[in-house]
Amino acid sequence: MLGGMQDFELRVPRLIEHAAREHGRREIVSRWADGSETRTDWAGIERDARRLSQALVRLGCGPGDRVATLAMNHAHHLAAWYGATGMGGVIHTINPRLFDDQLVYIANHAEDRVLLYDRMFQPIVDRLRDRWTTIEHYVVMDGEGEGSFRALVDAQDGDFAWVEGPERDPCMLCYTSGTTGNPKGVLYTHRSSVIHALAEVQPAVFDLDTRAVVLPIVPMFHAAAWGLPFAGAVAGCKFVFSTVNEPALLCDLMNRERVTHSAGVPTVWLGMFAHMDATGVAPKHLELVTIGGSAAPRAMIERIMRMGVRVNHAWGMTETSPIGTMGARSPDWDDLTFDQQVDQVAMQGRVPFGVQLRVVDEEGAELPRDGQSSGRLQCRGPWIVQRYFKAEEVSVDADNWFDTGDVALLHPDGTMQITDRAKDVIKSGGEWISSVELENAAVGCPGVAEAAAIGVHHPRWDERPLLLVVRKPGASVTAAEIAAHLAQHVAKWWLPDEVLFVDELPHTATGKLLKTALRERYKNHQLAA
Amino acid sequence: MLGGMQDFELRVPRLIEHAAREHGRREIVSRWADGSETRTDWAGIERDARRLSQALVRLGCGPGDRVATLAMNHAHHLAAWYGATGMGGVIHTINPRLFDDQLVYIANHAEDRVLLYDRMFQPIVDRLRDRWTTIEHYVVMDGEGEGSFRALVDAQDGDFAWVEGPERDPCMLCYTSGTTGNPKGVLYTHRSSVIHALAEVQPAVFDLDTRAVVLPIVPMFHAAAWGLPFAGAVAGCKFVFSTVNEPALLCDLMNRERVTHSAGVPTVWLGMFAHMDATGVAPKHLELVTIGGSAAPRAMIERIMRMGVRVNHAWGMTETSPIGTMGARSPDWDDLTFDQQVDQVAMQGRVPFGVQLRVVDEEGAELPRDGQSSGRLQCRGPWIVQRYFKAEEVSVDADNWFDTGDVALLHPDGTMQITDRAKDVIKSGGEWISSVELENAAVGCPGVAEAAAIGVHHPRWDERPLLLVVRKPGASVTAAEIAAHLAQHVAKWWLPDEVLFVDELPHTATGKLLKTALRERYKNHQLAA
Repeated sequence: MLGGMQDFELRVPRLIEHAAREHGRREIVSRWADGSETRTDWAGIERDARRLSQALVRLGCGPGDRVATLAMNHAHHLAAWYGATGMGGVIHTINPRLFDDQLVYIANHAEDRVLLYDRMFQPIVDRLRDRWTTIEHYVVMDGEGEGSFRALVDAQDGDFAWVEGPERDPCMLCYTSGTTGNPKGVLYTHRSSVIHALAEVQPAVFDLDTRAVVLPIVPMFHAAAWGLPFAGAVAGCKFVFSTVNEPALLCDLMNRERVTHSAGVPTVWLGMFAHMDATGVAPKHLELVTIGGSAAPRAMIERIMRMGVRVNHAWGMTETSPIGTMGARSPDWDDLTFDQQVDQVAMQGRVPFGVQLRVVDEEGAELPRDGQSSGRLQCRGPWIVQRYFKAEEVSVDADNWFDTGDVALLHPDGTMQITDRAKDVIKSGGEWISSVELENAAVGCPGVAEAAAIGVHHPRWDERPLLLVVRKPGASVTAAEIAAHLAQHVAKWWLPDEVLFVDELPHTATGKLLKTALRERYKNHQLAA
Repeated sequence: MLGGMQDFELRVPRLIEHAAREHGRREIVSRWADGSETRTDWAGIERDARRLSQALVRLGCGPGDRVATLAMNHAHHLAAWYGATGMGGVIHTINPRLFDDQLVYIANHAEDRVLLYDRMFQPIVDRLRDRWTTIEHYVVMDGEGEGSFRALVDAQDGDFAWVEGPERDPCMLCYTSGTTGNPKGVLYTHRSSVIHALAEVQPAVFDLDTRAVVLPIVPMFHAAAWGLPFAGAVAGCKFVFSTVNEPALLCDLMNRERVTHSAGVPTVWLGMFAHMDATGVAPKHLELVTIGGSAAPRAMIERIMRMGVRVNHAWGMTETSPIGTMGARSPDWDDLTFDQQVDQVAMQGRVPFGVQLRVVDEEGAELPRDGQSSGRLQCRGPWIVQRYFKAEEVSVDADNWFDTGDVALLHPDGTMQITDRAKDVIKSGGEWISSVELENAAVGCPGVAEAAAIGVHHPRWDERPLLLVVRKPGASVTAAEIAAHLAQHVAKWWLPDEVLFVDELPHTATGKLLKTALRERYKNHQLAA
């Protein structure tokens, strides 16, 4: 049919162009590891991003090439996201908390060609440089001089046009640890990232406009910092970044920079509460706090709400870009009592337009939205994974349903409530620990016959691993010996808080560990560590 | 590159599915022409829409077919938007204020196959039915019984799957009157409408979530009711519709239904002020009023803001879906005095992500954003027209810039300010009147040598036409005779408020009427009518 609207590919450079053109003077504040603070703005980020694009092309990079970062939150990391995608490349944010074998696997699997890293991660680079087989160029994010981000960028003249292409081109790669095996890469596209960013600024999600002053405590290497670096460009908000997430420092930054919006996992708020209790100083300008990564305790939500601050409770995962649901206010919010309001926020909330959820039983049949029927949570939508990077098969069924590994129920009004977890993982401080990997490492220890790792509630980290071990007949292996063995195979923060010896472990009819029974048995266990 | 996110075509049925599934019980209230009020909800709208799709297919309609409406705002009109697009058709909202020749031209040019109309427009249908050459089916929107919307819809079983297809398929057609010639059709696509709707819910535009109770005073036949019927589905808000825009009635509805958001042209607020002054009764729950369609006077903005209500001042046109800019709050809003805040809102505001603006001089060279350089306003973006329906040529330059016909300047922070109009039109109550058409009709009147129509400020309608006439030598034609002549050629509301006889009219070097000089000369003219 003759006629219509303009072509406009939904590409990430459109975001930074918009922010620089319409909100160019809106500030981007960075608090660096050495304690210094710098200020730039969206125009400055665009300038750096364009020159970084230019530099990457000069280094031989082109469309589709992966540019990795090993870095905390700061202006150069933000510029790197736009610089890598601006030359048609894929920004690959590596989580520095992973252990060495994972860091090696991920960078080699991604075939990263460039690594931009913070000086604080120099030990990792020194340790793994020889094992990273594809990285050709190393750039230090902070500081100045030879080999630094500033030196690289400032050497360019900025005479560079963003590389264009189809909106379904990839733009970003984030790896996620699963229940077993190697980490899997989620490959976001320009289209998925831009639509997700547009969805995120709406009042029911992050509620962002140019007046917002946003301090994302969630790191840029964790689930794309929940999409905030892209959503912030849509809104043209002010950003305040800190490389160090120490409560006193964050609170001071929040008050000096008049931070209105913040986002992070539950653990960071526990730290903030302790700081508030000890000093009597609290963040003064906060309007909206988003908590996600793992379920926020009701008492935490209540305390923040009593400060007069709105709380949004988010659910999502790397595979969902990550916004799946947001515990936003219901139509009858003003008629609820305070306790009812807290109850509502304590659930995981509702989907924004784009995401669809369903709960299915063991046979895959859809369960009713009755507030009672619990089952496996599945989702689909334009910013949900279809196929992991380089995977031989798609990760969805014929109707695009992606199984999240969570167990949940849906209320009649669409509110989702997580009730259990089907995937065998432990969630500590918002990051996954694979139970299966821990168990496999443990049974490799002499004297161990069988082992089961389960998550046990922890006041600070939400969950921490408890390792249940059945010794081989006659063996006398100790908890310390097992811990020493594990330390050679997994990251330090994966180590179980406690090793408990038992005579036997429960199994299913087919011989698999009956984790549900174990989680039930130890649900009130007080970790010894 | 192997891997990526899910396919998800941005189609309008996704909007109604979302609203029905996630906000199914959120109410849609209609106040009908006969004074009755009905209540349904998003689930009810989806049910009606799906059955209307089914009925349209049974009537022989298919993808691409145009389904027209001649109707005010109510639940059936909303369902018609989703029903027509749900079967792959194009919803064509006809403006009943147009005069007969235009109504005939538009429906025939669109090749409308079905017309859904309100009983109040029965006289138009009776008058034009024989001249409409493509309409095969007539459906009455209100009331019940044979030939009514309810009868048609209720006869279906609802066993119908939305028709899918590429997101760049057309979904909606709106005609706009230009400076001369026939009205032109703007053909929106599923993609443009969905992206526009996503952009509209953000805080800097309509600020919509499910808590919002929205009464769009702007009619659904005027620039797609500014996109609210689609944006409302993204947000899952409550809608309150009225077929009659009488201030006392609207105020009563607003208070009974606790309306928080409203949107309309300046004229409706003048009526509301008169009602408030006369009765002492004002809307009590309003949080955000959006004024657009034509520039809102500063005093109007100030009065609404003094009621404690936020005002957004919108600029756009049918060709821009229509959101071009929105006068949202700046980062330093809280530091401004009340007067400064009013000054800010009185400008036309800033673009949301997606829209780009520039101002060019007579030679097409871009002018600086210095708050001083005034020139022709051009725009581009994913929801801006590229080619009018059935037009032989595109309406944009090689870089997609669309010339708006407005004259404006851009401030350094991106705020746009309309300063004049390049296109030869008069804007009355938010609707265009073509000066050229008026002049052409006038010179057809015996005794008229030359005529110039210009817009003169009017307290209620923003502008009204003043017709300047040079009589033929010796002629004695009167104002009444000219008015009687014009009435045969243009809509009643286009008739000049005053006809003024002059000895001569100013011309450019090439012999064209020098409208700028005339507008300057008569800018303080008090219309006699």
